[in-house]
Amino acid sequence: MSENGVEGIRRRTKSVTRAEEIQAEEKKARKSQPDKPCHQPRDSLFSWNSGFDNFTGFINWAFLLLSIGGVRLLLENFLKYGIRIDPIQWLYILTGYDDQSGSEHPALILAIYSNVPVILCLLTEKGLATEIIPNKTGMFVHVINLLVLILLPMAVIHVKDTFSLIGASAVTTLYSVLFLKLWSYVQVNSWCRIARQNHKSNLRRQSLSYSNLRKGPNNSSSKEESTEDLKLAHYPDNLHVKDIYYFLLAPTLCYELNFPKTDRIRKRFLFKRIVEVVLGVQLILCILQQYMIPTIKNSLIPFSVLDYTKSTERLLKLAIPNHLAWLCMFYIMFHSWLNLLGEVLHFADRSFYGDWWNANNIDTFWRNWNLPVHRWALRHLYFPMIDMGYNKVVASTAVFFISAFFHEYMVSVPLKTYKIWAFGGMMAQIPLSFVSKSIEKAYGSRFGNLVFWSSIILGQPLCIMMYYHDYIVVKYGESLLEEYSHL
Amino acid sequence: MSENGVEGIRRRTKSVTRAEEIQAEEKKARKSQPDKPCHQPRDSLFSWNSGFDNFTGFINWAFLLLSIGGVRLLLENFLKYGIRIDPIQWLYILTGYDDQSGSEHPALILAIYSNVPVILCLLTEKGLATEIIPNKTGMFVHVINLLVLILLPMAVIHVKDTFSLIGASAVTTLYSVLFLKLWSYVQVNSWCRIARQNHKSNLRRQSLSYSNLRKGPNNSSSKEESTEDLKLAHYPDNLHVKDIYYFLLAPTLCYELNFPKTDRIRKRFLFKRIVEVVLGVQLILCILQQYMIPTIKNSLIPFSVLDYTKSTERLLKLAIPNHLAWLCMFYIMFHSWLNLLGEVLHFADRSFYGDWWNANNIDTFWRNWNLPVHRWALRHLYFPMIDMGYNKVVASTAVFFISAFFHEYMVSVPLKTYKIWAFGGMMAQIPLSFVSKSIEKAYGSRFGNLVFWSSIILGQPLCIMMYYHDYIVVKYGESLLEEYSHL
Repeated sequence: MSENGVEGIRRRTKSVTRAEEIQAEEKKARKSQPDKPCHQPRDSLFSWNSGFDNFTGFINWAFLLLSIGGVRLLLENFLKYGIRIDPIQWLYILTGYDDQSGSEHPALILAIYSNVPVILCLLTEKGLATEIIPNKTGMFVHVINLLVLILLPMAVIHVKDTFSLIGASAVTTLYSVLFLKLWSYVQVNSWCRIARQNHKSNLRRQSLSYSNLRKGPNNSSSKEESTEDLKLAHYPDNLHVKDIYYFLLAPTLCYELNFPKTDRIRKRFLFKRIVEVVLGVQLILCILQQYMIPTIKNSLIPFSVLDYTKSTERLLKLAIPNHLAWLCMFYIMFHSWLNLLGEVLHFADRSFYGDWWNANNIDTFWRNWNLPVHRWALRHLYFPMIDMGYNKVVASTAVFFISAFFHEYMVSVPLKTYKIWAFGGMMAQIPLSFVSKSIEKAYGSRFGNLVFWSSIILGQPLCIMMYYHDYIVVKYGESLLEEYSHL
Repeated sequence: MSENGVEGIRRRTKSVTRAEEIQAEEKKARKSQPDKPCHQPRDSLFSWNSGFDNFTGFINWAFLLLSIGGVRLLLENFLKYGIRIDPIQWLYILTGYDDQSGSEHPALILAIYSNVPVILCLLTEKGLATEIIPNKTGMFVHVINLLVLILLPMAVIHVKDTFSLIGASAVTTLYSVLFLKLWSYVQVNSWCRIARQNHKSNLRRQSLSYSNLRKGPNNSSSKEESTEDLKLAHYPDNLHVKDIYYFLLAPTLCYELNFPKTDRIRKRFLFKRIVEVVLGVQLILCILQQYMIPTIKNSLIPFSVLDYTKSTERLLKLAIPNHLAWLCMFYIMFHSWLNLLGEVLHFADRSFYGDWWNANNIDTFWRNWNLPVHRWALRHLYFPMIDMGYNKVVASTAVFFISAFFHEYMVSVPLKTYKIWAFGGMMAQIPLSFVSKSIEKAYGSRFGNLVFWSSIILGQPLCIMMYYHDYIVVKYGESLLEEYSHL
């Protein structure tokens, strides 16, 4: 019967959409039979030997159920808490204004101060280029300058109590980016210096051949290109204020002497990106105020008394709004904001992210979600280490270590809780990467993709809850927690 | 820049997985440049002119978020209500035993009584075949018999108060199925009788040619087929007790004299179906007790006082467990149970459902989700009406009308609330079908599929809430509702 059934079902599968026409045709044939038979041997579609595998309708089903669940949670939240969104509070938070600090703006002062190490870096490079400063002294000055740069916010935020959380986060982010950019600037200029020393005569020819290469695909604007050729910057002509500030504003962490440029600003494109940034920031703040803060506050007691069922429920409740906020943040930061910057600055390389959503393991995700940092890590840490003779595992671990440091830096310094949850979370990626790769090998790419999504969706709220718990403990002491748990 | 960018991004898109190898290759080429340039003009993946469209990872993302949301709701429900599942209550419900009715089993008595109209039907057919009963009298007896059959449960359930809800539902379902089966039995036998009268000499030849046709694909069992040929039933030899009871038990509503048969019972297959039926019924009862009943009870006040926000929240809360229960019910009824019956009875036609989950409009769903009823409606109502000279619209409406009647019958009779929510819901399918078809034409098949899923997922809980509201009002009166709303 099974062979027969498979045969029957194959015919059926093809004709599902034409079912009625066929039924009408068959009806005519049947008319010659007295009992008009309508049955034939065939399998059900869910049976293995039916060979049927078209379940695409269930993809729409999943997205619809997700939306319905989402709308219900919105309504439930509204019924429980009312509207908690408060734009006036945003204004306080975004400007760093706080009742405690009054008219003091320590975040703004630190942001303005950041020009000092930049100028110092440029002056040192000038000195090195003109050989006023010896190479070893110059490099020593750079290292000290960068170390002071990264340690300054830690010290100031630790000493001053007048920082808002958002203000402190903005400062640590700014200083982290500046650190990576200046590292790149110093390293590229040192490469150029070495190249100049090694084969001064070759330099001019190679730059020209490079500009010819770049002309290739873009024949229409060859006139502009040829004028650009004349303008092409060569070391040490690049060492001036305008160039370094262009690099500091440009959406990249990797310095080079001649960035690829666009020839016009697309007004519509720019307008869309501005709207996205403005609305997107509001959306994230809404999700934060309305959904995340109540859930995080409610998670305090279950987490402190280690009630696993309630903690898990809170964790899963936090996971969805947190994940949506993260997705919004990703889009606004890596698509809207960096494209906006690029458009204004005529910066042509808009490859800020890969297709990390299709990643089949943790490694692929880390390589694709933040391409500016990934590109920086390869160009300025991984390959230099390989060139210095270290093996690949050591170099990869160093990249992860630096990445983990900056994650911890950008979280712990503003929160003033020097725990290692973020650092630990990042370092946990190394064993997790092995696990996810072996899962991918054993169960296929779909399972690998699911493991990657799970670690993203569940890992983040876990870290957030741990930080919040520690933040409260540090700020108000264990006494408050005990008091709470009696309620 | 845009042409350049598209070019760049196309190259990038193809090489996302090989990113590291290419980076390594490019690195070698770059080594000749002093500043190791790493930027090139290209667009972001989310930009329209990047041409990138691989977002398959988000399918896994949707299913994962759905599971996480589901697990959280399970936990929340457990924390709020504890375990409400009570297997002893199931036993009462399934056996129809109730404290009120004591040892009375009216459902069981009605089930046993259903043999009477069956035997009456068979005897009438025997009389018609042997021409003891004239044709008009016989048809009159059949119509009366079928009308009594379908009205009996209505009367008994209305008069007797000792029915459990499940018992009454089982009885109406049984009597509905019996009505459709006997209609088919009577109609097929009447076709055979007409054929015998019109061309008695042709009958034998046609049956033989039919059996030759059926032999076609199944060459291996030609020996059995030829012996089966000898056994082939011809009118009026089919009119005996064993044949009619085989038809009544078989998983089809369409009678024919020689059903296609399997040659063996697959033990593994049968075992799996039995396990599915046993576990699946438990699962549905769990969903009912743990998730649906509390939500339905909580919906009473918002629905009666027309609080739209709360009612919507309740509706959406009910939608998900109701839909999951419906999916389970579909699978258990149409796959597990009917395949189990088919396997035991050697019934070879297992086409009980089409791929309704891929339906792009309401019509396709109704044609595919319940093939036994669909086949019955075409064979015994639609085509006979067409043959009688009615046009297609009238015949289609008649099919929908009968279908709506049986939906109402199977819901209203057990609940004893003769409202038209189910009937109205079914009749609303006719305008909805036009709407969904025009949406499919205007916005494509994906939108059509979403409209179909929405109507399934949201329409059912709406009807359930309306019935529950009316059931409470009829049973306890408006006073209770008013009392409730003061709480």
